[in-house]
Amino acid sequence: MAVGASTLPALHPVKGFRLGVASAGVKTPGRKDVVVMEIAEKATVAGVFTKNAFCAAPVVISKDHLATGRNRYLLVNTGNANAGTGAEGMADAYTCCQALADAANVKREDVLPFSTGVIGEKLPVDKIVQVVPEALANLDEDNWASAAEGILTTDTRPKGFSVQFTYEGQTVTVTGISKGSGMIMPNMATMLGYVATDVQVDRELLQALLAEKSDKSFNRITVDGDTSTNDSCMLVATGALDLEVTQDNEPLYKLFADALEQVMLELALAIVKDGEGATKLVTIHVESAASQKEALDTAYTVAHSPLVKTALFASDPNWGRILAAVGRAGIENFDLDALKIYLDDVCIVENGGRAASYTEEAGQAVMNQENILIKIVLNRGAVSETVWTTDLSQEYVSINADYRS
Amino acid sequence: MAVGASTLPALHPVKGFRLGVASAGVKTPGRKDVVVMEIAEKATVAGVFTKNAFCAAPVVISKDHLATGRNRYLLVNTGNANAGTGAEGMADAYTCCQALADAANVKREDVLPFSTGVIGEKLPVDKIVQVVPEALANLDEDNWASAAEGILTTDTRPKGFSVQFTYEGQTVTVTGISKGSGMIMPNMATMLGYVATDVQVDRELLQALLAEKSDKSFNRITVDGDTSTNDSCMLVATGALDLEVTQDNEPLYKLFADALEQVMLELALAIVKDGEGATKLVTIHVESAASQKEALDTAYTVAHSPLVKTALFASDPNWGRILAAVGRAGIENFDLDALKIYLDDVCIVENGGRAASYTEEAGQAVMNQENILIKIVLNRGAVSETVWTTDLSQEYVSINADYRS
Repeated sequence: MAVGASTLPALHPVKGFRLGVASAGVKTPGRKDVVVMEIAEKATVAGVFTKNAFCAAPVVISKDHLATGRNRYLLVNTGNANAGTGAEGMADAYTCCQALADAANVKREDVLPFSTGVIGEKLPVDKIVQVVPEALANLDEDNWASAAEGILTTDTRPKGFSVQFTYEGQTVTVTGISKGSGMIMPNMATMLGYVATDVQVDRELLQALLAEKSDKSFNRITVDGDTSTNDSCMLVATGALDLEVTQDNEPLYKLFADALEQVMLELALAIVKDGEGATKLVTIHVESAASQKEALDTAYTVAHSPLVKTALFASDPNWGRILAAVGRAGIENFDLDALKIYLDDVCIVENGGRAASYTEEAGQAVMNQENILIKIVLNRGAVSETVWTTDLSQEYVSINADYRS
Repeated sequence: MAVGASTLPALHPVKGFRLGVASAGVKTPGRKDVVVMEIAEKATVAGVFTKNAFCAAPVVISKDHLATGRNRYLLVNTGNANAGTGAEGMADAYTCCQALADAANVKREDVLPFSTGVIGEKLPVDKIVQVVPEALANLDEDNWASAAEGILTTDTRPKGFSVQFTYEGQTVTVTGISKGSGMIMPNMATMLGYVATDVQVDRELLQALLAEKSDKSFNRITVDGDTSTNDSCMLVATGALDLEVTQDNEPLYKLFADALEQVMLELALAIVKDGEGATKLVTIHVESAASQKEALDTAYTVAHSPLVKTALFASDPNWGRILAAVGRAGIENFDLDALKIYLDDVCIVENGGRAASYTEEAGQAVMNQENILIKIVLNRGAVSETVWTTDLSQEYVSINADYRS
């Protein structure tokens, strides 16, 4: 199951960023499972990574190589996460980087590795190394859609988004792809996300922008509250255009930041909509909290409540479960009478209990929708936060109980 | 589904504590759904209650009446939680207390009310009030088993445990019953628990003992991480025996505290074993943590991980999911190489990856069991904590998606 239309929108090429795809049979023979991305020489690159203490080997190495500031290739494999693999996993990831570096005539540290798939199994290095030349051979700026397929694992559909805007007569492009559908509660980034643009952006500014926009997109989605060991999101500014984004440069900065946020949010929502077993896209908006922590604690407590999630799956307006979840979110000195909770525009809770105006029919009408907004008004301060999640279906259990993923 | 044998053990009567049961048809006609417990006049009573900010009306009133120190009757109804019901809910709970007080010739504040069931619906006061005389009429010290049935909701089996020990020639009894199977992550107490003993215990000491033992039993179990609005556990010392438990009184104190802990732990484990859709009883033991918070954060992160829980349901020794959950538990400056994780006696993780000695067959053998121990050795300090939980099955989703509970 998945929510909404599954069509991949048009993904505009980004000058200075080429993608190549190959099939190594890491886990499934014949499946596209190796993607190489080539970055123009003068580009700047930013990255955010999982906060799971157990970083997979490729995450450790990518962080390290990113710090050199010379980043020419991204090498992605699916089917195997190379996580929980100790010293051997590090050696295996280095071997893959070296193979690509040799074939492309760059240094090993110019290559950033990414792996996603089963945790704890040895990476089949030979299979990956063997198809690196093939992936390099088909590098093309027009290969975004193919690469979007090449980075998938349990996903049911490819995910990508692209935005263009015009500035001083030039067309600026921001294009990205992402993957992920389970073990989703990114903390700094989603499972895997790759976004490129053709403007020039200073490296530090690019990193700051990626971190800021991650906090409004990938870091606000959750399917099951499980944070992966391999989450990574990369942002590349190829600088192919003669346009530089700086903070002084207000109009372009704002246009670019907005486009980036739009692309990253669409990529993040695509992951939620393809959440394992998902039948609903649920937006949880907490308003007038006293602090960001309070807003996020409340939103995530509701988002992770199995009882709320199963009620959403059943399209059951069981507002008592939402109330109970808010009640255990750890808000101190909570004035219950000031709280209001809405399903879309239907007020379900006020004055410490069911809203007088509430009818089961009105609640049912909202719950029947595929897209549902739960709005929680705390009336304690000025902070708002939004988190996106899914419902919890029998299919989520089946997917994760029946298959080793 | 439920784990283990479903036979209710022998529940020894406690002198000075009588139980009466009636059928009011609160939600289901013909079901035992009202229980009255009568407490001897000179007894002492202790109680612990939910920390959910949205206490149900009966919880608010029970806390208040408990504070008076004159507690003669406990009045329980199932089928309706009288939670999220605002001022009307408070009035309804008072009406029930008054009806019992009138019939038993005591004051309203001598009665402590408890409700469990659907949240947010008006309590059918008339139905309850009507059967109070019937429940009073069949008060009996031998009615524990019948009362254990009378307090159930979605539970599939009654829960009770009883321990006796001899001290200075006298037989001391500690007997209890509990209910609960979903919305289970008690924070100070489980859904409902009632324990009585015939020794004398000073009121403050009784409260301290209940709090201490709750933290080793009811406050260490979780089915779905959802904390109910109605959790309550009451401990009554009737003082029928000419034996007083004091802290100076070391041998009796220790015998009594141990018996109490045993009864409360059995009652708590009975709730986990009857967890909605449960097929496994999972013990998560965290050893050598640097602090209690660290130990509990680690244990609960693993206990609440949907990916760990679905792997347990599938009997899949997918140790990577346990590792990933430990990795996101928020432990600071975590030396991954020092961590060890075991399934029963089988070491699955050491030196930052899969244990060299681990075999899939050994892991599979443990996962096939109905009772599974996950032992996590952090090697960071001297604190240990144990938490008990269940797996996550399609049936959990079905139970909570198909019925309004």
